Amino acid sequence: MKAILGVLSAALTFTIAVPAQAQFAKPEDAVKYRKASFTVMSAHFGRLGAMANGRVPYDAKAAAENAEVVNTLAKLPWSAFGEGTDKGDTRAKPEIWKESAKFKEASDKMVAEVAKLNTAAKAGNIDALKAAFGPAAASCKACHDNFRKD
Amino acid sequence: MKAILGVLSAALTFTIAVPAQAQFAKPEDAVKYRKASFTVMSAHFGRLGAMANGRVPYDAKAAAENAEVVNTLAKLPWSAFGEGTDKGDTRAKPEIWKESAKFKEASDKMVAEVAKLNTAAKAGNIDALKAAFGPAAASCKACHDNFRKD
Repeated sequence: MKAILGVLSAALTFTIAVPAQAQFAKPEDAVKYRKASFTVMSAHFGRLGAMANGRVPYDAKAAAENAEVVNTLAKLPWSAFGEGTDKGDTRAKPEIWKESAKFKEASDKMVAEVAKLNTAAKAGNIDALKAAFGPAAASCKACHDNFRKD
Repeated sequence: MKAILGVLSAALTFTIAVPAQAQFAKPEDAVKYRKASFTVMSAHFGRLGAMANGRVPYDAKAAAENAEVVNTLAKLPWSAFGEGTDKGDTRAKPEIWKESAKFKEASDKMVAEVAKLNTAAKAGNIDALKAAFGPAAASCKACHDNFRKD
């Protein structure tokens, strides 16, 4: 058990005194983490889209569950765009750091739209889901257009 | 907007009539997804470990937030170990599919221990966190020892 605790905490040795949400031992850990959070989010967002778009049958329970996951994940990647994370295996554009206020605005918008989508998905009807899905998808796209390399 | 919906749902074309939680267009999507969910979970679990282990100061709010993320993520990877996902860029051992009941037992155990950890983290004291962290970490390790390649 001690060995496990040691390994788990060793990665955090250099991060004391920074907020818990911003803790990454190395920039590449942050890059990997943020990409992973987008990957998971995207999978569940896609399932909501499939329902909103009529490709799969509407399932109120699945919609609520998927939206809840998206809502949790949507808040996570942003702490992982810290200093030194503009390099490596990433499609992040320099604009993220050059226009950080604009990037924050765009990410805040996405988080807000996803929160609305989560509320809508819990309403238990397809129309509410459809109405909220579009603006949420648009908020993803806006950020990709401006801040992600093709 | 239609373009976005189209792209998002195109990936799900082949998955109609399977449970929403099990929807992946290709086995490699499932592999990528499950690895991503473990990556995100591990980052937040590591932050709990750092507190439990005294490497970073205990922060009740951060502990509760991290445990909530871990609890959400812990439920996700299992649907992504479906047929055909034993190949490719994965450390998954064949035992996952050969001994699927044992694998399910191990993953259920982890989900249960993480739920307890989440409850403990919300109790707002370090001792509760410490007490629940060990068994949760052990449940991760048990599965890694038996079902993950080094």
